[in-house]
Amino acid sequence: MSEKTAAILAIGDELLSGRTRDANIGYLAGWLTERAIALKEARIVADDEPAIVEALNALRARYDYVFTSGGIGPTHDDITYAAVAAAFGRKVVEHPMAIGLIRAWYEARGEEVTPARRRMALMPAGAELVLNPVTGAPGVKIENVFVMAGVPSIFKGMLNAIETALERGVLIHARAVTAIGLPESRIAEQILAVQSALNGVTLGSYPIDGDEKGVTIVARSSTASTADAAIASVAAAMRALGFDPVEGERPGR
Amino acid sequence: MSEKTAAILAIGDELLSGRTRDANIGYLAGWLTERAIALKEARIVADDEPAIVEALNALRARYDYVFTSGGIGPTHDDITYAAVAAAFGRKVVEHPMAIGLIRAWYEARGEEVTPARRRMALMPAGAELVLNPVTGAPGVKIENVFVMAGVPSIFKGMLNAIETALERGVLIHARAVTAIGLPESRIAEQILAVQSALNGVTLGSYPIDGDEKGVTIVARSSTASTADAAIASVAAAMRALGFDPVEGERPGR
Repeated sequence: MSEKTAAILAIGDELLSGRTRDANIGYLAGWLTERAIALKEARIVADDEPAIVEALNALRARYDYVFTSGGIGPTHDDITYAAVAAAFGRKVVEHPMAIGLIRAWYEARGEEVTPARRRMALMPAGAELVLNPVTGAPGVKIENVFVMAGVPSIFKGMLNAIETALERGVLIHARAVTAIGLPESRIAEQILAVQSALNGVTLGSYPIDGDEKGVTIVARSSTASTADAAIASVAAAMRALGFDPVEGERPGR
Repeated sequence: MSEKTAAILAIGDELLSGRTRDANIGYLAGWLTERAIALKEARIVADDEPAIVEALNALRARYDYVFTSGGIGPTHDDITYAAVAAAFGRKVVEHPMAIGLIRAWYEARGEEVTPARRRMALMPAGAELVLNPVTGAPGVKIENVFVMAGVPSIFKGMLNAIETALERGVLIHARAVTAIGLPESRIAEQILAVQSALNGVTLGSYPIDGDEKGVTIVARSSTASTADAAIASVAAAMRALGFDPVEGERPGR
């Protein structure tokens, strides 16, 4: 089984103005890692059709899966479906099953299906639906692209809905060790030596921000025993420097 | 004065594995908005030289300023300077002033300048320094690119250090109004009508996530009175729908 790769394109003026901090990239990163799919790139662009088209076409040509978030709501500034349609050279049409889902959702709640709500069914022609368990209006899947909502609770609900459609890759085993108070520059040579001595392991060094300082070393390998051996060697090097290694990430992290 | 544009390239495997949630993109977005510089695009790539080179060359050709974060520390997985040098077709050399700053920093603390610490002075040839008020080792500026640390406290410190080097754009006035409980699909047509009626204003609609639901409408204009007028019209439309508009973002946000 070869490695499966992915990218995310988060769409929204509010993410670039500082009004809203994106929460979907970080969530998707962890979610994909648990499913052995490698997130290779993330981009954030504004609600601007040429910017969306260019980024989407670059990413969908390069990775197995592309996830977009944002811009599929009922208001005039939600232009993602039009941009996705343009990227694929397709028309925008009312999706019969989507309008059915939207009608059923609002009618069950005694609410009117206004033109703005109908607008959420105007989708790229030929798209499959991504079900929305949170607020009814679905997203779409076109080829290897999943177009999803930006509101984090809806984004998560849609991810759960598409989980079985994704092919998983090879699981990577990660192990970590932390030494509070140790500057990473004091152990840099030792961790490079550990990585050089062991085949098939990648070591990452992550300084701890904040008052206590210190460093976490993470070992990643497709073999659990190799990751374990690397972390044992790093822990020994930490002890030799007079620090007390703690298994895993910084306590409380 | 024309609009000044910017992009950020956040670099780090840990941001794409879900280990660390990026904090610098959101911080920079707000910081640039306050300084009337428009953040147009953000990208996250791994610690992978070809990926960094390609993204950096795309962004620096397109925007007035590019900020990178991450990968300039002392360990073997910190490869940003090598990648930036490759993007600019420059060699990596020991920067005389950088090594001086690093020596002074560690010697003042009675610590040794190890090879790993010296490594932080190996920079693209001809770079200017970006001072680091937090941990000594500087970043660099090359043409329109600022290469900075990924640790958020150091990133912020470096931003403060370069503030006066940036040319500001035209200040945009933003006003907001929030209605708790109002679904954005019920006011979509009214806000489009307000935007169409007023020249030089852009309205954004942002649904509130979480239990209380509701919507915030944000008006942006280079003229404060236009932004005010737009928000007054939206507030009137909210009242007409039976909701109580509150000035600004959701309370407590």
